[in-house]
Amino acid sequence: MFDPESLKKLAIEIVKKSIEAVFPDRAVKETLPKLNLDRVILVAVGKAAWRMAKAAYEVLGKKIRKGVVVTKYGHSEGPIDDFEIYEAGHPVPDENTIKTTRRVLELVDQLNENDTVLFLLSGGGSSLFELPLEGVSLEEIQKLTSALLKSGASIEEINTVRKHLSQVKGGRFAERVFPAKVVALVLSDVLGDRLDVIASGPAWPDSSTSEDALKVLEKYGIETSESVKRAILQETPKHLSNVEIHLIGNVQKVCDEAKSLAKEKGFNAEIITTSLDCEAREAGRFIASIMKEVKFKDRPLKKPAALIFGGETVVHVKGNGIGGRNQELALSAAIALEGIEGVILCSAGTDGTDGPTDAAGGIVDGSTAKTLKAMGEDPYQYLKNNDSYNALKKSGALLITGPTGTNVNDLIIGLIV
Amino acid sequence: MFDPESLKKLAIEIVKKSIEAVFPDRAVKETLPKLNLDRVILVAVGKAAWRMAKAAYEVLGKKIRKGVVVTKYGHSEGPIDDFEIYEAGHPVPDENTIKTTRRVLELVDQLNENDTVLFLLSGGGSSLFELPLEGVSLEEIQKLTSALLKSGASIEEINTVRKHLSQVKGGRFAERVFPAKVVALVLSDVLGDRLDVIASGPAWPDSSTSEDALKVLEKYGIETSESVKRAILQETPKHLSNVEIHLIGNVQKVCDEAKSLAKEKGFNAEIITTSLDCEAREAGRFIASIMKEVKFKDRPLKKPAALIFGGETVVHVKGNGIGGRNQELALSAAIALEGIEGVILCSAGTDGTDGPTDAAGGIVDGSTAKTLKAMGEDPYQYLKNNDSYNALKKSGALLITGPTGTNVNDLIIGLIV
Repeated sequence: MFDPESLKKLAIEIVKKSIEAVFPDRAVKETLPKLNLDRVILVAVGKAAWRMAKAAYEVLGKKIRKGVVVTKYGHSEGPIDDFEIYEAGHPVPDENTIKTTRRVLELVDQLNENDTVLFLLSGGGSSLFELPLEGVSLEEIQKLTSALLKSGASIEEINTVRKHLSQVKGGRFAERVFPAKVVALVLSDVLGDRLDVIASGPAWPDSSTSEDALKVLEKYGIETSESVKRAILQETPKHLSNVEIHLIGNVQKVCDEAKSLAKEKGFNAEIITTSLDCEAREAGRFIASIMKEVKFKDRPLKKPAALIFGGETVVHVKGNGIGGRNQELALSAAIALEGIEGVILCSAGTDGTDGPTDAAGGIVDGSTAKTLKAMGEDPYQYLKNNDSYNALKKSGALLITGPTGTNVNDLIIGLIV
Repeated sequence: MFDPESLKKLAIEIVKKSIEAVFPDRAVKETLPKLNLDRVILVAVGKAAWRMAKAAYEVLGKKIRKGVVVTKYGHSEGPIDDFEIYEAGHPVPDENTIKTTRRVLELVDQLNENDTVLFLLSGGGSSLFELPLEGVSLEEIQKLTSALLKSGASIEEINTVRKHLSQVKGGRFAERVFPAKVVALVLSDVLGDRLDVIASGPAWPDSSTSEDALKVLEKYGIETSESVKRAILQETPKHLSNVEIHLIGNVQKVCDEAKSLAKEKGFNAEIITTSLDCEAREAGRFIASIMKEVKFKDRPLKKPAALIFGGETVVHVKGNGIGGRNQELALSAAIALEGIEGVILCSAGTDGTDGPTDAAGGIVDGSTAKTLKAMGEDPYQYLKNNDSYNALKKSGALLITGPTGTNVNDLIIGLIV
């Protein structure tokens, strides 16, 4: 039914088409017409900001009085009408982040109760939209962010701390816009879609407290200055009356799409989880053990089968190689699937990036580990050194899509025939 | 439909009854009558040795000319006819292991081509049935075994090394019994039931080579003496003509039983994998993410649902607490399931032991982590310190069955209503 090459092509096709279903422009164009907005100020923040803004302009045109876009370097694609378009640092905020956030606040400070901010928010906003509280430097926030990232803290824990050091996170942006209204269209990159956590929840009441933030630092043994501690103690807003939020895309939607695409191709398809959040290499091994059960025992699904997982795994970096969680998950699965025919696993960041590499993830089968061994390479040593990028590159198992403009966590599919 | 207490009782009932289905006596009594054996020498080795021998005696009676049983301390339950019954060290071989193995070899050395050894083999045989090759001391093997266990090496990798240092492993026992015949009844505690790996395959041609054994030591950076290296280079038998093997129980069978029991109780039940072998705490987190998908999205199974997993996870010990892989898996799941109602996870070693503790594993729900926090305890710190036993003990979440007499890896079930 499928030789390895065609199975590989099919897996890539399903992953790419599923990601397209959560392209921000599609989602914005589906939602905006229902809201009959007029005379809005558009603020787009996040890795998908440019495409969301472009789509909004194509729907609303001159009903947008003013537009400002803040996205990641290399993620903007040219001018949109007279919008101000900025690029800033991700995953760690930089000086451009500070400048553009200050510019956005300047704009909204001039609004009154008759105005509306159309706020287009996507993942990455935590780093792209940031202005520290008085007495806190960006440098201190940067040091804290990378220490938290390296210690394997979840994005939720990282945002709990950053919300309590920011003038825009944790509902403070919407508080600042008041009395003008905020209509937010949100693309979720947070498992469970918690609105107070997505991009550190600039337009949602903050459910986390100063005490929570201090506990996160303690849990990961991270030291901070007195001024940072004082800033953290200023509590974020717990109620906001001027906000209307629409969740226009998330990991559920990309997994639902993958399931229907796989079914169309004749596969028995099922979503196993959409909140995968354990260690990447162990997730790869676990998924491989489920794929083996399908292969040799026709359960939990009968072959041809498509197992679908959504979520965001974690990597505790110990080695000095390069890679990302999806590449590490794929390499680990390749080791566990070695020698098994008719199986393929594709793990991809839906935003097209995976760690500090140009890859979106990896696509491996039962021959990937063998290919490396035939070159005298030990796939296990690459995994141990967190060097999944180089292992997958050598075995032709990298998945490269380029920036996709969307960002709803990661999609992993396992095809078994 | 189910309050927490009755859900907990049901989970324990399903786990206990599933383990009973792979009790060695049941399996031996189902198989022996079909083999019409006579005038046999019985050799029973492993954690389930006593019960397998007892059952064989109840079937064959005086057709057993001579019997010898080698099991783990506390796992023999009194005399069986005039059988010689010994207990020895597990998980690390000791002086009693050496003495009893020498005694067994003495017995089989007197046999001829008309004789048959009824060899009853179960997990734990690697440690209970051992006589080092000339020039290798037990002490060197013990050091190697605990170094390999601590480094997280799989049981397969550990056995590859031990087979090449032993007079009985890797097919050498059957080779020694020749020209007499070996009829082996095997209870498998190895994922995939590989006969050359179960109890280090004393009666099966060894598929691993001296080179494989040296690679395992290198992979985990373990140093050895020159005499150990010389011993390893003596190759194990690759062909055995005098052996007949019957696989009478394994993790598949215990999972199949759990599935039918859960179905009888009205649950949608499915086996997700029977070769789970990743890090215990990450497996707990992954399983919790599947249970959440069932709870909130009614997939991959509709509620009331029973998710069934079989396998043997690994723990990389870094802390100085106490516990076992099943207790660590359960504690990790408890953290991830905190606050969710109508969910329960039970993780149990089918032999009734889990790490160096008196527990078989753990049984947790959405209240377990909260119970600990209410006592001012941080479940995450217990997990970090590999101290799952104490965390589960404090929250009344230990599963204690006592030695079960069987040993087919671990069974994990998740019930969601």
